[in-house]
This record gives sequence, structure tokens and C-alpha cells, in this order.
Amino acid sequence: MSEKFQTPRGTRDFLPEEMILRERVFDTVKKVFKRYGYDPFKTPAFENFELFTTKESIGEGEQDKFYVFKDKSDRKLCLRFDQTVPFARVVASNSQLPKPFKRFEISRVWRYEEVRRGRYREFWQCDVDIAGSSDMSADAEIIDCTMATLEELRFNDCYMRINNRKLLSEIIQFAGIPKDKVQDAFRSIDKFDKLGVEGVEKELEIRGITGEQKNKLIKTIEIKKKPQETLKEMKKLLGENEGITELQELLKNLENIGRKVVLDLSLVRGLDYYTSTIFEVMSEDEKIGSIAGGGRYDKMIGTFSGGEEIPAVGVALGIERIIDLMKEREGEKRKTYTQVFVVNVNDEVKKDCIGIANKLRQSGINTQTDIMGRNIRNQLDYANSLGIPYVIFVGPKEVKSEKYKLKDMKSGKEIQLTLEEIINQLS
Amino acid sequence: MSEKFQTPRGTRDFLPEEMILRERVFDTVKKVFKRYGYDPFKTPAFENFELFTTKESIGEGEQDKFYVFKDKSDRKLCLRFDQTVPFARVVASNSQLPKPFKRFEISRVWRYEEVRRGRYREFWQCDVDIAGSSDMSADAEIIDCTMATLEELRFNDCYMRINNRKLLSEIIQFAGIPKDKVQDAFRSIDKFDKLGVEGVEKELEIRGITGEQKNKLIKTIEIKKKPQETLKEMKKLLGENEGITELQELLKNLENIGRKVVLDLSLVRGLDYYTSTIFEVMSEDEKIGSIAGGGRYDKMIGTFSGGEEIPAVGVALGIERIIDLMKEREGEKRKTYTQVFVVNVNDEVKKDCIGIANKLRQSGINTQTDIMGRNIRNQLDYANSLGIPYVIFVGPKEVKSEKYKLKDMKSGKEIQLTLEEIINQLS
Repeated sequence: MSEKFQTPRGTRDFLPEEMILRERVFDTVKKVFKRYGYDPFKTPAFENFELFTTKESIGEGEQDKFYVFKDKSDRKLCLRFDQTVPFARVVASNSQLPKPFKRFEISRVWRYEEVRRGRYREFWQCDVDIAGSSDMSADAEIIDCTMATLEELRFNDCYMRINNRKLLSEIIQFAGIPKDKVQDAFRSIDKFDKLGVEGVEKELEIRGITGEQKNKLIKTIEIKKKPQETLKEMKKLLGENEGITELQELLKNLENIGRKVVLDLSLVRGLDYYTSTIFEVMSEDEKIGSIAGGGRYDKMIGTFSGGEEIPAVGVALGIERIIDLMKEREGEKRKTYTQVFVVNVNDEVKKDCIGIANKLRQSGINTQTDIMGRNIRNQLDYANSLGIPYVIFVGPKEVKSEKYKLKDMKSGKEIQLTLEEIINQLS
Repeated sequence: MSEKFQTPRGTRDFLPEEMILRERVFDTVKKVFKRYGYDPFKTPAFENFELFTTKESIGEGEQDKFYVFKDKSDRKLCLRFDQTVPFARVVASNSQLPKPFKRFEISRVWRYEEVRRGRYREFWQCDVDIAGSSDMSADAEIIDCTMATLEELRFNDCYMRINNRKLLSEIIQFAGIPKDKVQDAFRSIDKFDKLGVEGVEKELEIRGITGEQKNKLIKTIEIKKKPQETLKEMKKLLGENEGITELQELLKNLENIGRKVVLDLSLVRGLDYYTSTIFEVMSEDEKIGSIAGGGRYDKMIGTFSGGEEIPAVGVALGIERIIDLMKEREGEKRKTYTQVFVVNVNDEVKKDCIGIANKLRQSGINTQTDIMGRNIRNQLDYANSLGIPYVIFVGPKEVKSEKYKLKDMKSGKEIQLTLEEIINQLS
């Protein structure tokens, strides 16, 4: 088949057997988000290009991944690169929204990246954010809600790493690294998971951070004790500072909820826009790595509105990775929502079959019947190929007696029942 | 605020109060589709440009409405213009799919059109299609399913107009119009609803169809009797033909189901790709007009696969119009899914509040609690501003007695209950 009849590189079609699993994941996620008081919300698939390139949003580092185009009025547009930046735009431009404004969004984003196993150019993101609260109970709620969602999806071997950008910035300066190199240090430390200590050392050196400074920085961020102990030690080293106070507050809130976390001073989270709390959910299974991450970004919304700062905190679930893991975990895929197929034994009873199918449908049972003019065998083959769990046989005899044969396609068991009994059985 | 922080022209943000209504509509629609045995399915937001410009898909007539762009590998891409063409592509390239292949899709499409009230450049479409059946029972099922969906949404003043492209083509030739002008005649008749008889006459004249031919055509398509009588008259005028046979079959199937329709020989449906049955749902309210439409397109899939023809029939619901009508019909909008807000009377009971909130959540109740460090009045103001129906007051006294005040925010009624009783009440 010619290329024009294939999906563009990095995009996918989702056939029903894939969609049914995806819908189950999305529905579960939405259910938990709603329980925590988050409401749905949607933004356009494309935005004005400049929205994403603003220094306080995505910035210029990722620009080569943008899908940029012009509309017929010569407006420069960009397919949505993430969901956080459009969220911030909406909050900035709708000052009437009651605060805290708590929303979730599950939609597509597009990034022009190298396509490889598990990574696509079109994929779904799943974001939960709170705007308007600077209280650490908001950060704690986001963390709690994230873990509750993963538990509901039966990801029970996960743990939460947290850190704070303000503290990290203090540590970097404590190591003797000048303020204008703080971002460089962030970028180097960010590679800890990927490259290990030696890799980070090299990264620091490349960026001109060497000798004593480098060693002091690495020694400090490698401290990994119980969260409160680590904070005590930090206080001794650095004195009081906002980062420590915020982390203490956050830990107290998480303790109230009963959530345990790991304080990991080497955690950075790539994006420039985080200002305070940052966190990441890791699977105990090292192959899997991070499956959710987020943090606080208190500056972005104010930049967009040009007015007062509106603090915000949020998380993005790695929903595509979660779906991939669930696919591996579960064996057979469900191919259809259809519960029963009404087999018409011959053309004489076609009308009766449709009548029965529609009664089943009105009772809330997902039902198909023949629309191909097929014989019994071919109708059964179709039901089998989709894995439809039940069939009902309808022939002139059955119509007369008002009793129909209901067959369980898995066990092969057949029973004679009235339509009412069938409805009760399948409901 | 600068333009870059607004949505691009013709696109919209959907805040929760809008989304909650939209989700209700989408969920209802999906529920009915699933009952008829249709399964979900998704295609990418953009396709290779040539997919939409193929003669058998959208063709060149609509090209000025395409959002076209190039990716970094110089591939010419196009934002999805409709959902039928990508559906046909998927069926063409997945020959393993069991037939009939029955799917629904509710997603965004993009058309660069003049923006006006109720018309946007980014909007949702809602499609149901069957591939693989040439039997008129498939067309009847699509029609039945469409009407059932509208009934479920309480659009009870709708009626279905049907016609058949083959019959229409016969009528045009019967009027003496040469075969190469059949498409021109289609386009003229298509304006019947908008321009009336006189308008169509003018359109025909512009296209060089005048005098006797024009009069004969108009006289014929204006025949509007009971469907079977109209068909009898057509048979007399034109002799047997496939269009008439198909319509007879379709009417018999619809009679089996118990669906009444109007046979309207002036119905065309704009798109070029229809080959047989066409239909449109009209509201009795003339201001509203058409709210769903579709038909049979037996050639498209074969063109894409380059192999055998695979017949197909489907419908698109005018879901944006339906949502607009529902907004008018319903008064107050629900602003949140949250059912209850747990008010913390002072900081002392913060931990208890979170414990109670999380117990409610675990019982499936959508719950918020304070994450702003607010006093009682401000917590209540927030609950009110979102229209959260209940609040629970938690203070040291309540924690001690394990009885909490549940307040119905609408009636103002308050009762003292245990947490268990509250859960039962709200579930």
C-alpha cells in the first residue's frame, strides 16, 4: 500500500482491542481524580507558537521538537507540546475561576522526537493541577492523589521521590557554585539516574564546575537518610531556608495523610519552570523507572497574565508507559464491548431477531445481530472472532415457544430461557 | 492580555462547567453505540495530505479548508478533516479485521472556515460506521442507532429523511441531463433546503441545465408521497433499477425495526463519496435543521487498499449542535463533580479532615477539603462558588464525639451523623 495510506511516522491507529484497554485505564484515572475533587477541562490541540517559547513556559531548549505551522492568516501555531502551559494560560486569562482551581486533562500532545519502542510523536498525557494555593497541603494532595491513582491501577511497587528546587539551589550555592551557574548545575544533576555519579561529574566539568565545588555538590546531594534526618543535616549545613521549611511542611502534610516518601536531593526534574516542590514516582522495577512526575511552578501563570503571581502545582502521569505495562501484565485482550450476538436461524425470523436485539439493548445489554445476510455458521464464526461471550439462537420454533437457547461461548453450555430470563442473566 | 496568550481563532477552551455537560452527552452517545455493538477506535490527529485529497475521499473541492503543514522530514501532513476517511484507511490497511467491522469515534476535526456563531475551526465529530456489509440491514441499523441515540438525549421531535444516490442519478438522467452533468445536478439539488425551488432552478441554469430538462428534474424530485407510493411511481417512470431495489429493501428493514422515515427525492448530502443510501435527521424545529447525516460509500475503502471493494455505511452526529441545543434546553450548569466539601474548623483538626476526606473518597464519594489554609467562612464561600451540594463540619468536638454536621447547601438543612451514616447518605 502506498505511504499516503499509512499513518504518519510516530502516530498510531488504535483498534478496538487497544482502545478498550486504554478506555479502562483512562476511566480509572478519571474516577480517582474526580474523587479528589478535580474536574475535567480541555484546551485546543494547537496554540499560538509564542505561548510555548516564553521563557517561563517550555522555553527554547525544546523548540526543535515543536510541530509548528501557519494558518491561512499567517498565524504561527504550534501543536500542543504539553498540557501544563495551556493550563497556565487558561488560569491566567480566566480570573473569575474560584481558587483553588483543580482540574485534570487527558489529551494528546505532539513532540517531534526520534521514534523508538514505546515513544511516539503523538501520545496522550494525563495531567492533574491545582492553581491558586501556595500551601504545602496542595502539594501533598497532588502526591496523595497520584499514589491513589497508581494503587487503583494496581501498581503497588511504586515509591515517591521528592525534593525542592529552592533547597537544591541553596545546596548548589553552598558548594561554592556561582548563581549564574545554578541552571547548569541543575542540568548536570538531572542526569544522575541515567549516568550515575561519574556521568554527573563529567557533565559538571563540561559546564565548568570542577574541583572542590564539584565534590562538595556531589557529596551533599548524595546524602540519603530518613527525610527528617536529611533535613536536620541540611539545616546544619545551610542554615534555615525556604526550601527546608517547605519540605518540612510537605512532610508534615504527607504524614497526616499517611504517605511515605523518599527525600532525594539529587532529584531535579528536567523542566525549567519548577520553582519549589518537585517529585517523581519510581517503580521498584528498575527497568521501568519513572511513571509520574511533577512539581510546583509558581511563576508561570503570573507571566502569562502580566498580573499577580498565581502559585500552581501539578503532576503528569506517564499514561502511555502505564498502558504498555498493563498490556504486558494482562494476557488476552478484550476485542469488543458486545455481550451477546443474536443468531438468526433463517430469514423468516429476521424481524424477530431485530426485535429481540432491540429489547436487549433497551435493557442495557450490548447486542449485535446479523447485518450481513449470513448463515448460522458464519454468524457464529463472527461472534467467535470477536470473542463475544454469549449467543442467542432464534428460529421459528423458538419464536413460537418464546424460549430461546442462550449459549455461553466459553464453556459451550446451553440453556433454554425466556427473553426476560436472558436479560436477568446478562445484566 | 497579549494575543499570544489567547486561544487561536476558531478554537475554544472548555472549562469544567462546559466539560461536565459535554462529557454527559459523549457518555450517553457512547452508551447507545455500545449497545448496538459498536466499539471505540481512534486515529491520529493528522494524516498524510494525499489521503484527504484522493478523488474518492474528500477531493479537491474542500481543500481550502485543510490545515496543511510539513514536518521536519518534509512530509506534507493535514490535520484530520473528518473521521470517515481515516476510518476507511484503517479498514483498507487492516484486512484481518472481522467483518462487519463496527466502530464509533468521537474526536476532534479541524476545518479552516469562517468563524461564526456555533461554528468553529476545531470541533468534535461523532461517527458510527460499518464496513463490510452491503446488506440494507446495515443501513437500517445505522439509522435505528442514530434515532435511538437522539431519543436517549431526549431529542424527540426529529424525523429521518432518506434517499438513494443511484435512484437520484437515474432521475437526473431520466430528466434528459447527460451523464457528465450528473454531479452538477447533485450540487444544485443539494441547495434545496437553503434556497428553495427557485434557488435550485437558478443553480441548475448556472450549470447549463435549462428548459425541459430542468423542469422535468424538479418536478420529479418534488414528488413526496408515502415512501412505498413514491417508489411505485418511480418504478413506473424509470423502470426497475438498483436504487429502487435498495430503497425497498431498506424500507422493509426499517419496518421490521419499527422506524418510520420520509423518502425525500431532493435529498443529496453534499459529499461526493456517497454511492447509495443517504439520510439526514431533521428537527421539526426549522431553525435547528439537520442534526445528523450519513450514507453508504461503497467505493472509498477499495480505492485505498487497491484491492477488493469493501462496502461501508455510516453516520455523523452533529454533536456540537446537539450540545448547543442541550445548553439552551437546560438551565443551570453543574460546575463540579465534587459532592462534598469537608470544612476544617481549625488547624488542630487538619489531620482528621484529611482522614475523613480520604475515607469518603475510598467510598467512591467525590470530596474536597481545604488546601488553602482558609478560615471557615472562606471554605464555605469556595464550596458555594462551585455549587458543591454538601459540606461536613469537622472541629475538635466533632472529632471527639465522632458525629459530624452534614449540611445540605441548597436547603440549608443540617444533621448530625456518624461518618458511616454520611457515606450511606451520599452514596
